[in-house]
Amino acid sequence: MPKKKDEMITMAHGAGGEIMGELIKDEIMSRLKKSSKHVQVPLSALEDSSVVNNTVFTTDSYVVKPIFFPGGDIGRLAVSGTVNDLSVMGCKPLALSLGLVIEEGLPISEVRKILGSIAKTANEANVPIVTGDTKVVERGALDKMIINTSGIGMSWPPLEKNIKVVKEHRKFKGGWLRDSNLRPGDKLILTGYIGDHGVAILSFREGYGFESTIKSDVRPLNKMIRKALMAGGVVSAKDPTRGGLSNALNEWSEKSKVGILIEESKVPIREGVRSACEMLGIDPLTIGNEGKCIIGVVKERAEAVLKAIRSTEEGKKAAIIGEATKEVRGVVMRTFVGGKRIIETPAGDPIPRIC
Amino acid sequence: MPKKKDEMITMAHGAGGEIMGELIKDEIMSRLKKSSKHVQVPLSALEDSSVVNNTVFTTDSYVVKPIFFPGGDIGRLAVSGTVNDLSVMGCKPLALSLGLVIEEGLPISEVRKILGSIAKTANEANVPIVTGDTKVVERGALDKMIINTSGIGMSWPPLEKNIKVVKEHRKFKGGWLRDSNLRPGDKLILTGYIGDHGVAILSFREGYGFESTIKSDVRPLNKMIRKALMAGGVVSAKDPTRGGLSNALNEWSEKSKVGILIEESKVPIREGVRSACEMLGIDPLTIGNEGKCIIGVVKERAEAVLKAIRSTEEGKKAAIIGEATKEVRGVVMRTFVGGKRIIETPAGDPIPRIC
Repeated sequence: MPKKKDEMITMAHGAGGEIMGELIKDEIMSRLKKSSKHVQVPLSALEDSSVVNNTVFTTDSYVVKPIFFPGGDIGRLAVSGTVNDLSVMGCKPLALSLGLVIEEGLPISEVRKILGSIAKTANEANVPIVTGDTKVVERGALDKMIINTSGIGMSWPPLEKNIKVVKEHRKFKGGWLRDSNLRPGDKLILTGYIGDHGVAILSFREGYGFESTIKSDVRPLNKMIRKALMAGGVVSAKDPTRGGLSNALNEWSEKSKVGILIEESKVPIREGVRSACEMLGIDPLTIGNEGKCIIGVVKERAEAVLKAIRSTEEGKKAAIIGEATKEVRGVVMRTFVGGKRIIETPAGDPIPRIC
Repeated sequence: MPKKKDEMITMAHGAGGEIMGELIKDEIMSRLKKSSKHVQVPLSALEDSSVVNNTVFTTDSYVVKPIFFPGGDIGRLAVSGTVNDLSVMGCKPLALSLGLVIEEGLPISEVRKILGSIAKTANEANVPIVTGDTKVVERGALDKMIINTSGIGMSWPPLEKNIKVVKEHRKFKGGWLRDSNLRPGDKLILTGYIGDHGVAILSFREGYGFESTIKSDVRPLNKMIRKALMAGGVVSAKDPTRGGLSNALNEWSEKSKVGILIEESKVPIREGVRSACEMLGIDPLTIGNEGKCIIGVVKERAEAVLKAIRSTEEGKKAAIIGEATKEVRGVVMRTFVGGKRIIETPAGDPIPRIC
């Protein structure tokens, strides 16, 4: 694994882990003036979103290869990914921006298809695209297309109702569903099968053939998360994208300063994904997902929230996979055979360019 | 010039003109559900920014080539461009997002330099970077680096004060400095020399040599625009980036449904830019700028606003270059020799990848 002092940018710098974080911290955060009073959750808190003037603000660039893949395309991904980043903060996604960068020579029919997919997914999520920008670069200066979507969101009654329910059961600061909100005893709900997105793209790209049965799970999750909030008792939520479930759980554990124990037998994984991962030597817990989230709930409300999530199409395979606990440090998984395995933050991206 | 029905994306699709606008309209705007009640100025109004839940929201992707150029770099450009898009709406820029896409193999020293420039420019504008995302793509899949910055802004006392002054002189709906706000009689202030940015980049890239004397004008303009608002009487403002002054004036004329008459002798152009443009056969009015804006002011306040702008470093060469009028249709320039020239929306980009 390359170190910070290496002279060239490597794929690991894009793996969403520590390496780029250090660069950003060194060069930007250390030099920026103290943030203004409008910034309630600045970048230095290192969540995917920031809260400014009571508006949640997030951004993501999408470089998936290929731009059409089994179960979706870069347009559906760009809308879903940013809607989901907003949604896991507990807010109502209000609007998205759309920044297209296109390679000269790309067939217009493909651009139309992507734009159509963007509109369809925005309608599905019921979040409008309100501002945009398009750039074209000469042939060879880009691999087909890159999309950036940024998004803004605001607090809304389902979040307020949810917080009220949380407070009936334990002390809670309120506000957003921060990564630091997990406490010992909270139950962790995973909303469905993991690994589908990464395996589908890798398999399609490399021609392994698994993609005939495994499709990307890419979809907006705001409606499902709204249902969970309406049930009440949710304290935190994360979307296990880059770095997969391993990365998400470790971020949670670190920011909430709490141990996490999960049961391997409870983690929903399709048989096809499991066997593909075994063949390819990839840990399914480290693969990025684009239509799943993991939700922390006060224990008294875990069954009610699970039921609400399972009542949705996108959450029907949801399961309680574990809990926050004082009994372990970091993230630990009890395996099928009853042993314990430490789950670490993945060092790099097992599969590049899946988002 | 390629037409919409051409089969491939061409550089003209990125020229910020009608061609891409039609694609976006066909595929996205026509399919999106009616925007929610939170959207006050949707994309369909075709401003660079949108207003959602009283928050101004904008996005831009930057693909400038090369990433370091005389007078600036892609980082300074990405911060300034988005701060300026917010500022011309009259709002206070609150926060920016930063989406980096980097080619594997780029020297880390260059990335550090760009990040440092981003921090420096954000400090200069006093606008924090609050959220970000970094992707790395394999060597050859991108020409070094693309940056997306999105931004949010809010109404503030200088805008409210300004509107109060406008209303002392004529009817005014209030709200933001929309493109549709210009009325016959309003004076147009250009805040300095045009053409510097495009000529500096083109010359440096192609080795023409003009860049030894001409540097990009890239800089954040929010402090200068604040001064103009504090003077009072500003009705609309635009930053003449892609398509230059010609494009900005034509957009204004169309959206405000008013003629615009400018005086060639009043438009500030450096002698070096003028001769470079003559040699290269490029109309300086069509070249993109990154540190200028054009401000519409009620005529009674034109001198006061001009004085306020000239009191700033970035606006010291400002001039009243013309006015909105019923006496012409579209945009007309009275030439040095007293003739009249129709100024049209540029068909394509005279210089690609300058922003």
